Amino acid sequence: MNDRERSFWGWGYVDCFPDEAARRALGAQVGTLLGVGALAPRPPPSLEAAALPSPRIAPPAALARFGSAENGDRVTHTYGRSYCDLVRGFRGDFSSAPDWIAIPASEDEIAVILRWCGEERVAAVPYGGGTSVVGGVECTVGDRFRGVVSIDLRRLDRVLEVDALSRAARVQAGARGPSIEAQLAPHGLTMRHYPQSFEFSTLGGWIATRAGGHFATLHTHIDDFVECIRMITPAGVYATRRLPASGAGPSPDRLALGSEGILGIITEAWLRVQARPRFRASASVAFPRFEDGVRAARAVAQSGLHPSNCRLLDRTEGLLNGVGNGDEATLLLAFESADHPLGPWIARAIALCTDAGGACPQGPTLRDEGASGAASAVATYKQSFFQAPYLQSALVSLGVVVDTFETACTWDRFEALHAAVEAQVGEAMKRACGGGVMACRFSHVYPDGPAPYYTFVAPGRQGAEIEQWLEIKRAAGDAVAGAGGTITHHHAVGRMHRPWYDSERPETFALALKAVKQAVDPAGIMNPGVLVDSDT
Amino acid sequence: MNDRERSFWGWGYVDCFPDEAARRALGAQVGTLLGVGALAPRPPPSLEAAALPSPRIAPPAALARFGSAENGDRVTHTYGRSYCDLVRGFRGDFSSAPDWIAIPASEDEIAVILRWCGEERVAAVPYGGGTSVVGGVECTVGDRFRGVVSIDLRRLDRVLEVDALSRAARVQAGARGPSIEAQLAPHGLTMRHYPQSFEFSTLGGWIATRAGGHFATLHTHIDDFVECIRMITPAGVYATRRLPASGAGPSPDRLALGSEGILGIITEAWLRVQARPRFRASASVAFPRFEDGVRAARAVAQSGLHPSNCRLLDRTEGLLNGVGNGDEATLLLAFESADHPLGPWIARAIALCTDAGGACPQGPTLRDEGASGAASAVATYKQSFFQAPYLQSALVSLGVVVDTFETACTWDRFEALHAAVEAQVGEAMKRACGGGVMACRFSHVYPDGPAPYYTFVAPGRQGAEIEQWLEIKRAAGDAVAGAGGTITHHHAVGRMHRPWYDSERPETFALALKAVKQAVDPAGIMNPGVLVDSDT
Repeated sequence: MNDRERSFWGWGYVDCFPDEAARRALGAQVGTLLGVGALAPRPPPSLEAAALPSPRIAPPAALARFGSAENGDRVTHTYGRSYCDLVRGFRGDFSSAPDWIAIPASEDEIAVILRWCGEERVAAVPYGGGTSVVGGVECTVGDRFRGVVSIDLRRLDRVLEVDALSRAARVQAGARGPSIEAQLAPHGLTMRHYPQSFEFSTLGGWIATRAGGHFATLHTHIDDFVECIRMITPAGVYATRRLPASGAGPSPDRLALGSEGILGIITEAWLRVQARPRFRASASVAFPRFEDGVRAARAVAQSGLHPSNCRLLDRTEGLLNGVGNGDEATLLLAFESADHPLGPWIARAIALCTDAGGACPQGPTLRDEGASGAASAVATYKQSFFQAPYLQSALVSLGVVVDTFETACTWDRFEALHAAVEAQVGEAMKRACGGGVMACRFSHVYPDGPAPYYTFVAPGRQGAEIEQWLEIKRAAGDAVAGAGGTITHHHAVGRMHRPWYDSERPETFALALKAVKQAVDPAGIMNPGVLVDSDT
Repeated sequence: MNDRERSFWGWGYVDCFPDEAARRALGAQVGTLLGVGALAPRPPPSLEAAALPSPRIAPPAALARFGSAENGDRVTHTYGRSYCDLVRGFRGDFSSAPDWIAIPASEDEIAVILRWCGEERVAAVPYGGGTSVVGGVECTVGDRFRGVVSIDLRRLDRVLEVDALSRAARVQAGARGPSIEAQLAPHGLTMRHYPQSFEFSTLGGWIATRAGGHFATLHTHIDDFVECIRMITPAGVYATRRLPASGAGPSPDRLALGSEGILGIITEAWLRVQARPRFRASASVAFPRFEDGVRAARAVAQSGLHPSNCRLLDRTEGLLNGVGNGDEATLLLAFESADHPLGPWIARAIALCTDAGGACPQGPTLRDEGASGAASAVATYKQSFFQAPYLQSALVSLGVVVDTFETACTWDRFEALHAAVEAQVGEAMKRACGGGVMACRFSHVYPDGPAPYYTFVAPGRQGAEIEQWLEIKRAAGDAVAGAGGTITHHHAVGRMHRPWYDSERPETFALALKAVKQAVDPAGIMNPGVLVDSDT
């Protein structure tokens, strides 16, 4: 475990939050971008001023010893890290704090906690890294419960076994990204799953939310790396067999993947891991028009070359991330391999891009392990990628309405989807904020379609930020859903995306999922309100 | 639709069944292999002599017009094509024939049929190509039904839409392999899904059973090509959104994939299809020991090169398929691409094989579209691959006990699994048949494990073949399950694999699946006895 202090209201480590001078500079910069003049930073909130209700329930002594009812712990387990969470946290509003935080160290302890919850009509909300941006860990569970427990998996943080022959590792669900990498490193192995929340999010959270990771093509979601899963449901253990593949009935793993805590608590998984990459190839390709970049991304996605990175950035996205020199679109390409040099791969990918109107004057950068190599656009982008959530917290302190949303759609629908998003989100920003800026990138690409990812930034009015944000968020969700996209490619559903999720899935699947929940969670205590409504 | 006559008891087209002289030659050859002297072919059965009970139920006139109650149709819908099915068919035993064959031409007709089944307590067994080798289409449904309808999807056989930009096609579930390819060809597209049953099996059957296909690595199952599914359940339409990927809750597609007809009838799917490959590279690598071949297959599977073919054949498998020149192991490698020449890919794969002790004296064969190229070991193998089921039917007429079974396991478990299978199936063949021969190949390989595929051939005693086969089949299932393999990588569960499937899946998943079935099929009419028991 890590001793660095986490922000109780904002993203990540306290020592990474920009200081007042830095936020003042940011306020000047963003104010100019938005045409509203320099924005002044407000002081971040203090933990002492946090407002939260008294606990409604207390666990029996036998349970109390592996948990906490302290206000400090209750505050840090109140929210995920959506825009809405940040604003409420910044305001000191922790009214939906859980009544108790359980921090079990074993499956047996989890089972005991869930039994108590079932008997006492207490809702159980699984908590991994607390980085949900969709209200997935928020304890707003309705009136039919006597209280809510947030179940923090941080004590289950070990890599338990490594099978080097099969390149697989058995990992506990509470392990965070850096910890998993550190424990795999001595074996020459790596997981290479880097969601933007990598530093804080956990394996269990990735599996529960079908997190998107490092690879822009091919193995894009955590789903592809899961060999088997152990999950503690109120009805008992749900443990699948460790297999490279099977055709025996509908996949039990795929039912747990994306279950968002409504069926049980994921405790561990065997994962397919990677040999550490030795060979790397990368390139940055500039396009005179965004649609040329789209064509190039599609050609590469359909080529069978399987780049690890194939991220298209539009002009604004490039500017925000310090790449692209103001080009209308930039495609960041990278290949990596533990096995073979990648010259032919990147050469062909660049040829596809230049065929589509791109320019790659510098050509590819090819590296072998240990070679130093100048910082490429890809590396710059990666750095900026992990900093972005800190930036969002800083912008909240400046009163800016700032968020991201993402989707996926087939290539034939992308043009119309993109136009609808630009128009409808643009109008919503104008209505709610008097204007704003939006950027687009592709986070992942598939042979049959891209996963577009949007960032919007608009000036807020103090006290009205959540209503402003809601208006924009609704426009975004409606635009995406109306154009045939999914409400989420990798941010999950949680409580926030429910309206669009409900209309996206077949009604018959909703019936099926409710039936599954009823079968393994008969008391309906597991993360109520997420994915389905429990009427138990 | 196709007018060539299908065998009512054996595999495929009547005109492909070997004539008496050919079967006599085969009998001499196999008799020698088994050390029992020449085996004499028995005459194939006649349809007139088929024994089947009278229909117990008849549909109302409104339904009767889109179906058949004729004995010829009832006979051809009685069985799949497992060894057990062939033997019973050869004996003229069609005692489990369905009472009526429905041949709907639309989803509306399917819905009407299912409604009638629910109201009249009639079981509904979906029927695609009738090639199940696990009893998946057999109408043995227990006493609680008044009768059984086999629902044949053959009239839903069209490619309805093609989206060339996204490389996707909307295909009806009753379309067979060759028909799908023929309808995609004018668009320059191909599906490239070639299970051994390709000529006869249907898209709906592939999806319902999670069929394994052409590609030995990467996209091995039909699962990977499904963009969305339409299925008619008794509770209504189950239609998923067409998307390249999504992270919105557990995947509704993955619940339909492998559902084996117990939830509803799949009517169509959008599929990811391929551009027709232009570049090909292939090689055949010989190994002095089987375990060297295993090591090479693993190295290639973990290399990130993603060959389309990477099939390891042991000595006996090589002999049976006319490749390998008696080497202890042969690895058939192939790459294909619509986009780029594959020299660097195959060169690296061969280097990995020679590092593992393999020899590839002829080097790779590289081809560009239209180039003729001599028949390679890969092509020879493919030809023999599609002929194998005809051979099995001929062997049944010779009184031979002959079948295949397959599994998947992680690499660390393969050696012990292989040894257990050889020992336990060898002993069972000795007990049941006085001896026999077994061969092994890898049908697919993954970074974390192979999918081993076994063929066994043993002398039968007329009238006792099914009991002999059962003893061997039980030993095979027990050996595979005991060593941590799956009971099926791509042959499905059906009725035959139930005992092992029941112990392989988590009990909590069985609860979940039963609950799903109860939710979408409240009367429990859909393919009863497959995957779960209905107690409704």
